[in-house]
Amino acid sequence: MIKVGVVGGTGYTGVELLRLLAGHPEAELRVITSRSEAGMAVADMFPNLRGHLDVRFSAPDPAALAACDVVFFATPNGTAMQSVPELLRAGVRVIDLAADFRLRDPAVWETWYGMPHACTDILAEAVYGLPEVNRERIRTARVVANPGCYPTAVQLGFLPLIERGLVDTATLIADAKSGVSGAGRKASVGTLLCEASESFKAYAVPGHRHLPEIRQGLELAAGHAVGLTFVPHLTPMIRGIHATLYARLTAEPGDLQALFEQRYAGEPFVDVMPAGSHPETRSVRGANQCRIAVHRPQGGDTVVVLSVIDNLVKGAAGQAIQNMNLMFGMAESLGLAGVALMP
Amino acid sequence: MIKVGVVGGTGYTGVELLRLLAGHPEAELRVITSRSEAGMAVADMFPNLRGHLDVRFSAPDPAALAACDVVFFATPNGTAMQSVPELLRAGVRVIDLAADFRLRDPAVWETWYGMPHACTDILAEAVYGLPEVNRERIRTARVVANPGCYPTAVQLGFLPLIERGLVDTATLIADAKSGVSGAGRKASVGTLLCEASESFKAYAVPGHRHLPEIRQGLELAAGHAVGLTFVPHLTPMIRGIHATLYARLTAEPGDLQALFEQRYAGEPFVDVMPAGSHPETRSVRGANQCRIAVHRPQGGDTVVVLSVIDNLVKGAAGQAIQNMNLMFGMAESLGLAGVALMP
Amino acid sequence: MIKVGVVGGTGYTGVELLRLLAGHPEAELRVITSRSEAGMAVADMFPNLRGHLDVRFSAPDPAALAACDVVFFATPNGTAMQSVPELLRAGVRVIDLAADFRLRDPAVWETWYGMPHACTDILAEAVYGLPEVNRERIRTARVVANPGCYPTAVQLGFLPLIERGLVDTATLIADAKSGVSGAGRKASVGTLLCEASESFKAYAVPGHRHLPEIRQGLELAAGHAVGLTFVPHLTPMIRGIHATLYARLTAEPGDLQALFEQRYAGEPFVDVMPAGSHPETRSVRGANQCRIAVHRPQGGDTVVVLSVIDNLVKGAAGQAIQNMNLMFGMAESLGLAGVALMP
Amino acid sequence: MIKVGVVGGTGYTGVELLRLLAGHPEAELRVITSRSEAGMAVADMFPNLRGHLDVRFSAPDPAALAACDVVFFATPNGTAMQSVPELLRAGVRVIDLAADFRLRDPAVWETWYGMPHACTDILAEAVYGLPEVNRERIRTARVVANPGCYPTAVQLGFLPLIERGLVDTATLIADAKSGVSGAGRKASVGTLLCEASESFKAYAVPGHRHLPEIRQGLELAAGHAVGLTFVPHLTPMIRGIHATLYARLTAEPGDLQALFEQRYAGEPFVDVMPAGSHPETRSVRGANQCRIAVHRPQGGDTVVVLSVIDNLVKGAAGQAIQNMNLMFGMAESLGLAGVALMP
Repeated sequence: MIKVGVVGGTGYTGVELLRLLAGHPEAELRVITSRSEAGMAVADMFPNLRGHLDVRFSAPDPAALAACDVVFFATPNGTAMQSVPELLRAGVRVIDLAADFRLRDPAVWETWYGMPHACTDILAEAVYGLPEVNRERIRTARVVANPGCYPTAVQLGFLPLIERGLVDTATLIADAKSGVSGAGRKASVGTLLCEASESFKAYAVPGHRHLPEIRQGLELAAGHAVGLTFVPHLTPMIRGIHATLYARLTAEPGDLQALFEQRYAGEPFVDVMPAGSHPETRSVRGANQCRIAVHRPQGGDTVVVLSVIDNLVKGAAGQAIQNMNLMFGMAESLGLAGVALMP
Repeated sequence: MIKVGVVGGTGYTGVELLRLLAGHPEAELRVITSRSEAGMAVADMFPNLRGHLDVRFSAPDPAALAACDVVFFATPNGTAMQSVPELLRAGVRVIDLAADFRLRDPAVWETWYGMPHACTDILAEAVYGLPEVNRERIRTARVVANPGCYPTAVQLGFLPLIERGLVDTATLIADAKSGVSGAGRKASVGTLLCEASESFKAYAVPGHRHLPEIRQGLELAAGHAVGLTFVPHLTPMIRGIHATLYARLTAEPGDLQALFEQRYAGEPFVDVMPAGSHPETRSVRGANQCRIAVHRPQGGDTVVVLSVIDNLVKGAAGQAIQNMNLMFGMAESLGLAGVALMP
Repeated sequence: MIKVGVVGGTGYTGVELLRLLAGHPEAELRVITSRSEAGMAVADMFPNLRGHLDVRFSAPDPAALAACDVVFFATPNGTAMQSVPELLRAGVRVIDLAADFRLRDPAVWETWYGMPHACTDILAEAVYGLPEVNRERIRTARVVANPGCYPTAVQLGFLPLIERGLVDTATLIADAKSGVSGAGRKASVGTLLCEASESFKAYAVPGHRHLPEIRQGLELAAGHAVGLTFVPHLTPMIRGIHATLYARLTAEPGDLQALFEQRYAGEPFVDVMPAGSHPETRSVRGANQCRIAVHRPQGGDTVVVLSVIDNLVKGAAGQAIQNMNLMFGMAESLGLAGVALMP
Repeated sequence: MIKVGVVGGTGYTGVELLRLLAGHPEAELRVITSRSEAGMAVADMFPNLRGHLDVRFSAPDPAALAACDVVFFATPNGTAMQSVPELLRAGVRVIDLAADFRLRDPAVWETWYGMPHACTDILAEAVYGLPEVNRERIRTARVVANPGCYPTAVQLGFLPLIERGLVDTATLIADAKSGVSGAGRKASVGTLLCEASESFKAYAVPGHRHLPEIRQGLELAAGHAVGLTFVPHLTPMIRGIHATLYARLTAEPGDLQALFEQRYAGEPFVDVMPAGSHPETRSVRGANQCRIAVHRPQGGDTVVVLSVIDNLVKGAAGQAIQNMNLMFGMAESLGLAGVALMP
C-alpha cells in the first residue's frame, strides 16, 4: 500500500482526488491537511464520502507528511513550492495539482503568477505530468507537475498534428469551453448558479495563465516557437472541457484519422473516436479519459480537432492518480476504471 | 461468473445497469437484446461505455436468454410478463426493473396499468425487491420485482415510523421531487431541455402509478389500510429523487433519531444522517445509496422525513444489482462501492 | 411622474426592480444608493440595463431620498427600519422589500430576526402589501411591507380555503420549492453553480423566517391560531417558487374550482388555472403573476393546491411596483404587462 | 393597427413572436394557423400567454391570410415558398423566419436544403432582413428573409473588419455556441434535458446550413469570395448564442474599438461594449440586442470578436418585428424595448 498525504483538499480537485483514492486498491490516505478545517471529518464537508472515507482534516504537520510515500498538493498556486524542498529531503515524492512546477522558465512563471518562484532549482527536475508525452520520465520523477485542465485537452488535441509538422504553428487557435468547477470551490459572485447558469461567456481573452503552459508544451513538440490564440469560455455546467482546435495545414496530411489513431494507439486514457464523431463532454464525466475527433471541413486547409475531458479527472485528480500509478510501478489504470456517468 | 442477460437496455435504466455490470467483478454480460437496435454496438449508443463494454444489441432470442443465470428486464411496463414464464421454465432467474410484478393484486395492476396481467400465477411468488424489507426472501426468489424509484425513497423514509405504529397512517403525505431521467429516454416534448429546465412543476396529482405500489408496501408494514397523498414533481436536473414525507404523531415517539438509526443499523445502502441534516440528492449521484434525515419541526406533532436517492441507482439499476448479489449468494455490495460524484 | 428612490439595489431584487422601473411609464428613478458601489454606473454592474438606465449608484443621502415621492428599500433585513421614520417625517412614502415591517408583533420579529425592532410605533400603521388581501389599505398607506416570496405563494394558495372555513387549520402543510435567486446575490459557497445545480435539498426544516409571516397572514384570515408545517427546498434553477399546499377538509367544500375562481375573479395578477392543471414556474418567469390550481386527489379529504410565482416579481419587485401603483392612484397593472419568458 | 397573420407558431420562434406581438402597440394578431393544433387556444399550449392573447390556432386559410397586412412564417424550411407567391399577389407582405428566401442562388439552396426552390423568381426581390446592412431596402420589401440566428451573430461581429478590408478573408473562423432552443420544439432524443444538459459538444462540423448563409453575407461585404470555417456547438442552456470570431489582420487596423463603435453608432440594437469586455449571453436574454466586444490578444495579429444575441429574439422573432417596423414605417424599436431578464 502506498502511503498518501494530501495538502489542501477542501476544493473540487481535492474532493475528486479523495473520491478516486477511496476506490484505489493500493493507496491508503494517511493524512489530509487543511489549516481552516482542521478537526472536521472529511465526510462532513463532502457527504458523498460518508461510509467511504473515515478521516479528518488535520493541521499541516511536516512530520506526518514526511512519513508518506507521496504527497499530493491540491492547494492554490504558490503554496506547494514552499513545502516541496523539505518533502524531497525527507524522501517523499510529490504530485502538485497546482501550477507551481508546470513552467520551466521561472521568469515566465513570475510574469503570469505574480510572484517570484520559491525553488527554481527544483523546476529543472520537475516532470510535466502528461503521461502521453512524458511517461518514462514520470516513472522516476520526484516531483510531478500535474498539467492544467485546459492544457491537457488542448495539447492532446494538437500534438499529433504538430509532432508531424503538418500545420502552421504560427496561427494555432484553441477555443476552449469549461464547466464552472474549473473556477474552484470558493465563495464568489461570478460563479453563483444565478450568475453562471443559463449564460455563456468568454473570459480572460487578453491572456489566461494556461496560455504559457500550453505554448510551452506545443513548442517542445514543435521544436520551435509557436503562435497560439487561446480563448477560454465559461459554460453553464459543472464538469467538462471541450476544446475546439483550429490549425492550417501546410502539407498534405494523408489520413488524419489514422494519424490520430496511431499516435494514441495503446494509450489507456485517450480515445480517438470514429471519423465524423462529435464527442460530448458527458461521455467522460467522472472518468479519466480524453476523447478526440478530427475533422477537415469541406476538405479545406483547416483542420478542426475536438477534444473533451472531465476537467476534474483527466484534467486534474484522475491524471494525478495516473501519475502516481506510474511513479510507483503500478498498473497505469489502477483505480481509474470507473465508467463515465451518463446521463 | 454469473451469466447475465439484459432485455431492453436502450433507456436510462438500461445504460445505468450496463455501467454497473461493466464494473461488477462476478457478472458477465452475455446478451443484451433490443429489437430496434439489433446489430448496433452498445458503445455506439452510449459512448461512456467505449472501452468498457464490447457487446452489440441483438434481436430477442429465447435460447440466448435461456442460457443465462439471470435476466434483467429494462423494458416498458407489460413486456416482462410476456416472457418471464418461459424463462422460469428454463431455470433462469429474473429481475424486472419495470412494474409487472410489483403489485400483488392483479386487479389493482389492471386498474393502474391499463391492461390485464399476463401471468397472475407468478405474481404470488414474485418477491418485491426492497432488500431492507425482504432480504431473506430475495435470496431464494426466482422473480424479483425491482421497486419503483419513488416507492424506494418513500418507503424507506416512512417505514421506521409505521413499523413502530407511531403515526396516523390515515393522513400520510409524500411530496416527492424527481430529476427528469425518471421520465426515460424517449423523444417527447415535455422533457426537452427547453421545456423542463429552469422550471418546476407537479404532475399526476390526480393519481400516479407509484401510489398503489407505495401504499401496498406501507400497508404491509402497518398491517392495515393506509391513507396516502402522493404528489410527484419534476425538478430541473438529470438524476435524483428527494422525498419529503409528513406524518402526524399519534404517540410520544421517544428519540426519533435513534429509532431511524436502529432501524437501518447494518444496512449497507441506507445512511441515516446526523440529527438536523438536510440530505442533498447530489450526495448520492451515481451511488446505490439512500440518505435519510428525520425532523420534528418546532417540536410539534408533525414528523418530517427527508429521503434522497439516485433514481437510476438505488431507485433502479443499483438496487437491481443489489438484488442479483443477494440472489446469487454474493456480497450484497459487490460492484456497488462507487462513491457518488460530487460536484 | 412619480419620483422614485431606491436604497440598496445591487442584489437580485434590486436589479429586477430597476428592470421594471425602466419600463414603467409613470415612474422616474431619481436616486439609487449603495454605499459600496457609489459612483459606479448601474449598467456596468447589470449589463442588461445598458441603454435603458443611465444612472449611477450614489452614497446614501437623506436629502436626495427626501425629495422623492416614494422610496423602495431593497436592503438586508434590519436596514429600512433605521431610516423610515425620517423619511416619513419628510413626507416620503416607503415600500420595504425586506422583512422589517412584515410582522406585527415586535417580539416575534426579534425572535426570528435576532435584533430588537427599531421603530415599533410604525409597525402598527405599516400595511402588509398583499393587494389581494389589503388593496384598500395599501392605497393610503405611508409604509408598505412588501411580502416575502414564499409567503406570497403560500397565502394566495391557502386563502380561499381558510377564509371559507373549509379546512383543518391545525394541520396545514406547505411544501415549497424555490429557485436559487431567492438566496440573493452574495458570494457564498452554498449557492455556487457547482453546489446548487443538479441537486435538490430541503433547508431550514427546523424553522424558516417566513414561517411566522405566513402564519400571521393565515391567522388573520382564519380569525384564530393556525398550525402550519413549512418546509422550503432549494431547486436547481434561477427563478420561481412552487408551493405545494396540503389541507384536510373539515366540511364538504362544494366546487373547489369555482371557489378559487370566485375568490380571485377580477384579480389582475392571480390566475386560477383550469381544473386538472399543473402550473409550471416558467409560465410566470419574469411576470407579475401567481398561477394556481386546486386538486382533490382521488376525491379524498386532502386538498392539494399548487401555487407558482416568480420569486423576484410577484414575490418581490413586481409586487412592489403593484403596491406603488395602488399607493399613487395609478392603474394597478401599469408597467407590469410583460409576458413571461417561455421557453 | 397592422393586421398580422402568423403561419406556424407552435415552435419556439412562434411563441416568442407571439410574446412580442402581444406587447406591440401597433400590431394586431388576426390569424395564427396550425394544421395540427387547429381549434386549440394558443394560451393552452403556451400558458405564459394566458391573459395576454385570446386567440385560437386555425386551419390554414388563404383568404384569412390574404386579409392581413403582413404574414410571418414560423414554419419549417421549404414551407413558406409554397405560399408566398399567392400572398404577394394578394398584396400581403411577408416575413419568413425560415431559410426559404435567405440564399440568393437557388442551386446553393437546393444543395444545402435538399429540395428545389419553389419560386426562384421571388428570390431576386427578397431582401435579407439584417437591418444593420439592408435597412433601406427592407423598408420597401415585399418579402423579407429573416436571417438565421448564427448568421446574425456572426455577420454583425465580422462586418466592421471585412467592410474595411482589414483582415484575411480566406481564413476566417467562427466558433459559435448556441442554447438548445435553436434546435426547436420538436420531440427528439438529442435535445432532451437528460441528453443536452450538463454536457457540451460540437455538431455539424462537416457542414451546417448556416455556413452558406454567413458566407454569402460576408462575401457581399467583402466584394469577393471568402473562406470561412464555421463550427457550431450545443450549450446546456435554453437561450443565447455566443459567437467567438477569429480573423488575421492584414493591415494595421488602428483603433479597433473605435472602428466598431463607429460602425454601429446609432444602431438601436447593436451594443459595442467597452474595450476589454466579455459579453454574456444572459445580458440579452429576451431582448432584441446584439452585444459585441473586440479584442486583440497580446497585441498580436489575430483579432477576436465576441458577439452575443438571444437566438429567439435578435436571432429570430425580435429581428422579424424590427423588420416589420421598418416595412410599415413605424419606429424601428416599437415593441422591442423590453429589458433582458437577468438573472
